[in-house]
Amino acid sequence: MKTDSTEDRMVDEDTSDAGGDEIREHRTVRWRRGTSSEVEEQIAVEEPLEIRLAGRRFTLTMRTPGHDEDLAAGFLFAEGFINDASELDEIRRVRGRKGAPDPNAIDIILNVPAEGLRARLKRNFVISSSCGVCGKTSIDSILRRVAPAPDSARVEPATLLALPEKLRAGQRVFAATGGLHGAAIFTLDGTMLALREDIGRHNAVDKVIGHALTNAMVPLTHQIMMVSGRLSFEIVQKAAAAGVPILAAVSAPSSLAVELADEIGTTLVGFLRDDSFNIYSRPDRVTAS
Amino acid sequence: MKTDSTEDRMVDEDTSDAGGDEIREHRTVRWRRGTSSEVEEQIAVEEPLEIRLAGRRFTLTMRTPGHDEDLAAGFLFAEGFINDASELDEIRRVRGRKGAPDPNAIDIILNVPAEGLRARLKRNFVISSSCGVCGKTSIDSILRRVAPAPDSARVEPATLLALPEKLRAGQRVFAATGGLHGAAIFTLDGTMLALREDIGRHNAVDKVIGHALTNAMVPLTHQIMMVSGRLSFEIVQKAAAAGVPILAAVSAPSSLAVELADEIGTTLVGFLRDDSFNIYSRPDRVTAS
Repeated sequence: MKTDSTEDRMVDEDTSDAGGDEIREHRTVRWRRGTSSEVEEQIAVEEPLEIRLAGRRFTLTMRTPGHDEDLAAGFLFAEGFINDASELDEIRRVRGRKGAPDPNAIDIILNVPAEGLRARLKRNFVISSSCGVCGKTSIDSILRRVAPAPDSARVEPATLLALPEKLRAGQRVFAATGGLHGAAIFTLDGTMLALREDIGRHNAVDKVIGHALTNAMVPLTHQIMMVSGRLSFEIVQKAAAAGVPILAAVSAPSSLAVELADEIGTTLVGFLRDDSFNIYSRPDRVTAS
Repeated sequence: MKTDSTEDRMVDEDTSDAGGDEIREHRTVRWRRGTSSEVEEQIAVEEPLEIRLAGRRFTLTMRTPGHDEDLAAGFLFAEGFINDASELDEIRRVRGRKGAPDPNAIDIILNVPAEGLRARLKRNFVISSSCGVCGKTSIDSILRRVAPAPDSARVEPATLLALPEKLRAGQRVFAATGGLHGAAIFTLDGTMLALREDIGRHNAVDKVIGHALTNAMVPLTHQIMMVSGRLSFEIVQKAAAAGVPILAAVSAPSSLAVELADEIGTTLVGFLRDDSFNIYSRPDRVTAS
């Protein structure tokens, strides 16, 4: 895959390489214990990104700027529009009228025959519009395109318990603004491989999956994914598409997230904080050594 | 507006009248301080809802069951597909093959001429697809359909500081599962008028706006809206459509949320918790008496 972005595409060691575009200052009245003062408050940036396919608008998403290539690649892969990195031919920044790159548009050239692409678009927009997905039908369709993660993946409870602090420590934009979700990939012994932040929970997951995809790390069959918030159906679906066997979150899963994880054999860990966690499905992958 | 639902449509006094459909039990392995045990864990329900217009699929959203009529009405209104409650002719439960109501589908008959409706659908899907909205263009378009909230609305800091506890106390499903967002409407002196919960933040807002719309409370020009999470662009947009002058949240706003609030004159309050809060726009509405 070629890209004309100057963005750093190396594997992050332990932090998000978030830049200045993610934070904006805003004059704010702060009220504390009965007195008010004016301060410059740091706010997480939210801007629309238009994702085009060969020049035509494909989708529009509100996101935090930065790692747009990861977001686009991860979205297309996690939602089943592309099957692997070889189908991503090129990711281009779109030029605005004055020739400067448009910060809020990106164009993707796929390496997929037009006919095959049409069928995929049709299939995916039926079962998984951006508004959501339709229960049982959707689970069946996901089952068809997801390879079961290998049963050999194992994690120790102590490794899981150490993940929230590592995630939090790496969330630079969250630390400044209190306003961003995070998603990270770890090895089975708890080493962080990549972390992405975004105002949208799904976007943070798409970004980290896109990073993994374009760095030949997919399928993530011997990795753990952890997210900062809750586990919805869509997050489980995206992690499954990337082959993740163990998916953990700081907060609660939904009923449909648990149902899907049960069906496809993902180990789902929730309320991972302080000295405890819950395992909702496939607890056999969590074992003390 | 007629409805054949048996759901209670009275104004809630101080709690969400959430029913049993919102919580499901699931056998879970709980790990606490080095030991594991099996428990029945309560999980927030997530199911798809298909919203139809005169029998044709209009949109599909993942939501927590309950108050589906509020959700559909609020969504259509907050996104600009209907202008007021008189344009909602009927909300019907869809019957499944065996004649029983389909729990995950709802059909709406609008009281809008076909031609006018087509124009609205076209306009709204251009500027506000379910994936998001497009910055400046969208702000302009929202400005055109939003009447400025009156400058006479005022709230005391002490009233704001008391809201988070009232919101939390009313969130019954959250209390059981830890997995739901909440949105509530309060009078300017802090009396809760309605509260809705949902797995999706936007849905909780749509539900409470739908409740207000179908109970002749809109425009909410002398009310406060409070949400449990963060403030995105879309939440500000929805509150503005309902005429809300003061919008508060437990957590952070995004840059585009602040920008929109600035333009349309909404008082935006964030990080409202414990003994403090921030005011990002129109601080003049917050005054000690």
